Amino acid sequence: MKNKIKVSVVGGTGYTGVELLRLLSQHPYVEIHHITSRGDEGKLVADIYPSMRGIISNQFINPDKADLKNSDLVFFATPNGIAMNYAKNLLSEGVKIIDLAADFRIKDVAVWEKWYGMAHTSKDLLGEAVYGLPEINREKIKKARLVANPGCYPTAIQLGLLPLIKNNLINKNNIIADAKSGISGAGKKLEPSFLMAEASESFKAYGIEGHRHLPEMEENLSACANGERVKLTFVPHLLPMVRGIHATLYVDATEEFDLSALYENFYSKEPFVDIMPESTCPDTKSVRASNICRIAPHKEIGTSRIIILSVIDNLMKGAAGQAVQNMNIMMGFEEVAGLVLGPITP
Amino acid sequence: MKNKIKVSVVGGTGYTGVELLRLLSQHPYVEIHHITSRGDEGKLVADIYPSMRGIISNQFINPDKADLKNSDLVFFATPNGIAMNYAKNLLSEGVKIIDLAADFRIKDVAVWEKWYGMAHTSKDLLGEAVYGLPEINREKIKKARLVANPGCYPTAIQLGLLPLIKNNLINKNNIIADAKSGISGAGKKLEPSFLMAEASESFKAYGIEGHRHLPEMEENLSACANGERVKLTFVPHLLPMVRGIHATLYVDATEEFDLSALYENFYSKEPFVDIMPESTCPDTKSVRASNICRIAPHKEIGTSRIIILSVIDNLMKGAAGQAVQNMNIMMGFEEVAGLVLGPITP
Amino acid sequence: MKNKIKVSVVGGTGYTGVELLRLLSQHPYVEIHHITSRGDEGKLVADIYPSMRGIISNQFINPDKADLKNSDLVFFATPNGIAMNYAKNLLSEGVKIIDLAADFRIKDVAVWEKWYGMAHTSKDLLGEAVYGLPEINREKIKKARLVANPGCYPTAIQLGLLPLIKNNLINKNNIIADAKSGISGAGKKLEPSFLMAEASESFKAYGIEGHRHLPEMEENLSACANGERVKLTFVPHLLPMVRGIHATLYVDATEEFDLSALYENFYSKEPFVDIMPESTCPDTKSVRASNICRIAPHKEIGTSRIIILSVIDNLMKGAAGQAVQNMNIMMGFEEVAGLVLGPITP
Amino acid sequence: MKNKIKVSVVGGTGYTGVELLRLLSQHPYVEIHHITSRGDEGKLVADIYPSMRGIISNQFINPDKADLKNSDLVFFATPNGIAMNYAKNLLSEGVKIIDLAADFRIKDVAVWEKWYGMAHTSKDLLGEAVYGLPEINREKIKKARLVANPGCYPTAIQLGLLPLIKNNLINKNNIIADAKSGISGAGKKLEPSFLMAEASESFKAYGIEGHRHLPEMEENLSACANGERVKLTFVPHLLPMVRGIHATLYVDATEEFDLSALYENFYSKEPFVDIMPESTCPDTKSVRASNICRIAPHKEIGTSRIIILSVIDNLMKGAAGQAVQNMNIMMGFEEVAGLVLGPITP
Repeated sequence: MKNKIKVSVVGGTGYTGVELLRLLSQHPYVEIHHITSRGDEGKLVADIYPSMRGIISNQFINPDKADLKNSDLVFFATPNGIAMNYAKNLLSEGVKIIDLAADFRIKDVAVWEKWYGMAHTSKDLLGEAVYGLPEINREKIKKARLVANPGCYPTAIQLGLLPLIKNNLINKNNIIADAKSGISGAGKKLEPSFLMAEASESFKAYGIEGHRHLPEMEENLSACANGERVKLTFVPHLLPMVRGIHATLYVDATEEFDLSALYENFYSKEPFVDIMPESTCPDTKSVRASNICRIAPHKEIGTSRIIILSVIDNLMKGAAGQAVQNMNIMMGFEEVAGLVLGPITP
Repeated sequence: MKNKIKVSVVGGTGYTGVELLRLLSQHPYVEIHHITSRGDEGKLVADIYPSMRGIISNQFINPDKADLKNSDLVFFATPNGIAMNYAKNLLSEGVKIIDLAADFRIKDVAVWEKWYGMAHTSKDLLGEAVYGLPEINREKIKKARLVANPGCYPTAIQLGLLPLIKNNLINKNNIIADAKSGISGAGKKLEPSFLMAEASESFKAYGIEGHRHLPEMEENLSACANGERVKLTFVPHLLPMVRGIHATLYVDATEEFDLSALYENFYSKEPFVDIMPESTCPDTKSVRASNICRIAPHKEIGTSRIIILSVIDNLMKGAAGQAVQNMNIMMGFEEVAGLVLGPITP
Repeated sequence: MKNKIKVSVVGGTGYTGVELLRLLSQHPYVEIHHITSRGDEGKLVADIYPSMRGIISNQFINPDKADLKNSDLVFFATPNGIAMNYAKNLLSEGVKIIDLAADFRIKDVAVWEKWYGMAHTSKDLLGEAVYGLPEINREKIKKARLVANPGCYPTAIQLGLLPLIKNNLINKNNIIADAKSGISGAGKKLEPSFLMAEASESFKAYGIEGHRHLPEMEENLSACANGERVKLTFVPHLLPMVRGIHATLYVDATEEFDLSALYENFYSKEPFVDIMPESTCPDTKSVRASNICRIAPHKEIGTSRIIILSVIDNLMKGAAGQAVQNMNIMMGFEEVAGLVLGPITP
Repeated sequence: MKNKIKVSVVGGTGYTGVELLRLLSQHPYVEIHHITSRGDEGKLVADIYPSMRGIISNQFINPDKADLKNSDLVFFATPNGIAMNYAKNLLSEGVKIIDLAADFRIKDVAVWEKWYGMAHTSKDLLGEAVYGLPEINREKIKKARLVANPGCYPTAIQLGLLPLIKNNLINKNNIIADAKSGISGAGKKLEPSFLMAEASESFKAYGIEGHRHLPEMEENLSACANGERVKLTFVPHLLPMVRGIHATLYVDATEEFDLSALYENFYSKEPFVDIMPESTCPDTKSVRASNICRIAPHKEIGTSRIIILSVIDNLMKGAAGQAVQNMNIMMGFEEVAGLVLGPITP
């Protein structure tokens, strides 16, 4: 039995935070150290999230008072622009970091600053930070001190595209990602459009003029294409449900190949990627509350078009689950530790 | 063809407001004069509610700039405590008023001030104000200048109890109203518990220690019981859906009588109350987006207990629809004008 | 005041049927004659759909006993393959027909028989039948005896594409229609995947290998393109909600033009098509329970790609509402008669 | 480490069945032996429930071919009336049984036969069968060969009432249980009213004239009251959501006592019952996908009325979770083995 490591969560009041706490509380090798919140300082986690009654006994502590430097690893489940202010100090104390926000997802600082509308305060760490998609960066994550946990859309979309991009089998300038997300992806934002009265029984596109996940995907996919530029058309939509992302991807093949075999082989050793049988369509409920990504590649008859369906739970493989997977890799645990959780259905 | 009257809506940005606008825009005898909002002054109604594009061309106008005194009738779809500040002046200009909030629902000013936590600024109008439940006060509403539109729960619950109370057939100290409301009843309040991520796929009671609709019901039902005190146990619950109230009422009969016949006779001439066939249970969807209240009285076998099920759409018979019904009565229109709208199903 | 016409509905027990009854019961120029059902013969419509209590007093009558030939117009809200057996006889009696199913939507009988898996029993009427999309066929519908009401997806998608196709502004071989429908589009089919326990809180694609609405759209759009072949990639998805279709359309422009002006002009006189302001995204709730289609065309920056968003209520503009619109045109009523119904929101 | 036991599930295709499989697949001391189904014989479990891909590799086997007698324990997740036909033979082979259906829940065979409409084929086992509510029968369950897993409503309601009944603190003839259940409680029944198009955005009571869970509760609660007859008024309602039961219980206290202390003490050692802080209301989401029951007792001010709120996940503590808890007790495992799963929220 391994010794338990001490893990803290900065920003534990959001939906990603509580999901992370659910996972960490069940993790065999983890002891929860501090959970911070400015707004809810002093309150019990279980007072904000009654689901955690009897499971998490911690109080929220002000991050300025938290003894983060004595944690082995710190998760940032904060808004964008927070982790970059803590990273250098924590790393210098030997603390590992996984940022579930966007501070270290994009290497090109100019691009980052344009899309996120603020100056980056830790540019010198951008080179070291590892983009935490284990399916492409597992070896780097093993040695990483600082991991940038990917966005939810980017996880579903990139896992769907990687076999094609890595093997240079499609036109990289004509990729459409029509993506749909459950409303927990918006976090706990208090806006009328996220109220149940408005969001339920409705569906819409948004962010069509530009979404922050677009540069993240284009930079990383281009890196996976040996630097050849990958260009996406990305349209996110808001689903009237809580959890789940479904990406419908349209690409043009540049040659003939066995589509199913490509995907099966590419992901044959991945514990959290499941290639569906031919001619099937995965539903988001089949991955709900689990860390699994299910992918179904389809070939259009009579054309060169390929359609890939990719589903994840946005709070799990799209956020907290993937963060725990990254922690497991960084700390040398079995990669699936604490993540062997069957999807909740119905 | 009657001449159209000029009607204004003070506070048109909430859910009750937009429902009222939907009804007024289709009403044969009404012209919408002003729609006020402080927060959205200058914006088009259709910009806040795209459903109103092509239907309502008005801009929101600041209430201080609105020419309300030249309206024939003004609806207040405002928070509590607003209408009472406008009422005297408007009445003195000959403008009729329907308040969809609570300012004039309770005659006992001490009770009102305790439950609503503010001083009442129009006490002298409380005597004149008519409680706008047409099924009991139709004649008074005809002559009223100022109508207090009932709350949503009180409408569903009182319509369910009236035949028994009015005929003195039950124990008035042992009445339980277990009521469930769709989330639009909470209005556009920006609280985490009304976000879709939290409210959907969940159900809970609330306000169990005391809800403002309780004194409203007790005062009015007591008045209907010839002043004998009527005491309710009232537990409201929040449903994971948008529209609809279902009241399950438990009472004890003090004598034998034909339950179905009582209800059928009591409501035989009411255009908006439907008594269901024996042994059936109405669902809220059967009244959605309509002004209908459906009631099913049941007798427990072998006991004196009676169980009454009563459903309405909280935004319609529970708010805007009833307000239009009251307007029709006050103005001498057919009572159903503008309200002959079939429920939306599925 | 026009005399009322006698209208019958064959197959009134499905969701399209009850929506049609809701509209017809409120229509100023219509009297409901017969409503047929084999399975529910003898029952009151209101027993199957309590929402119709007090609104529709008809019983379901067996279609073999119904006096359809004395109706002025008969709607078929039946499964595919029924209307084609009734059409000739009814037309010979001077009865007009609107088929809400697919029997007369496709002119090419071989294509129809392949996709619908049965022999067509009224081939000689296919030439006469008019495809009931008023926005392109209004003049033909005016004179038609037999109208094929379009499918729900085809209505949303074609209205989104028509300005571009008719003006020959896009590559007709590279059109992607990523469409999402509420579950009422599946009708009252008793399959586990349509149970609330399975369908809610989930989202998936389906019919990716081929959906019957594809040949309908390709044939009709090709006709609109002067016979030049239009080829679609069409992926339908199932939304966890009841009503609403959202089509996200991806096309490639072959030249420069003013996108907004094109759409505004094309639909400037249409009572039921609303072009949204630039940079906005319509939600399906903004058209719920109304006959409106809202369209928002978007241009991708720096490329030739155009993205069009188009929303309808699948039971209204996608079925019953459009059928009533067609009836109005066929009978010379105002086109909006009985359809001036504001969308239900929230 | 204990040796793993071999466990089979008869009737694995329903919602209770798949939930049981989710739990058993994660259970540390269990190996899944056979999963039976007549209708889906030969299919992979994962083909019917894609959520089980990669988790359960079993095929459904015809129960007549299954080697059940070599299982250590068999769960029946079947319709009522099945387990009673298998029980004697399996018990004689030394196999333990947990029936998640109703065959052994009621001791009075005449009552059982009246409510379940069939002859009981294993009357002689009724005396031996233990009602599997661990909070009252833990010692009997330890020694039981045959456990009758309680119904979902009875679990939520009885846990809410037991402290009062056991301590003889209330009027046993005036108990009202107003209960609300998510739609998964109806199982996979193919009826229109369970279709998402009809059930979502709606709420209704049902079974008001008599529900099978009523005699189960009355018999068992009477046994807990030293045989004094306990009489319930029980009104179940259908919630527009998938999982969760909320019972609102109204009782009359016959004396004064410390309500919170009573509940805290009564359940102080129970691993799966959580008494909420005073003046709070639990929501069903706070127990979703977990085996926890949360209870909040409230005292009405100025009267003798007590209102108890009790929530469970109907598929967990209301079915599969409680069945696993019973298995753990019967087999001498830690009672929480395989059940330390945090609720899924949001």
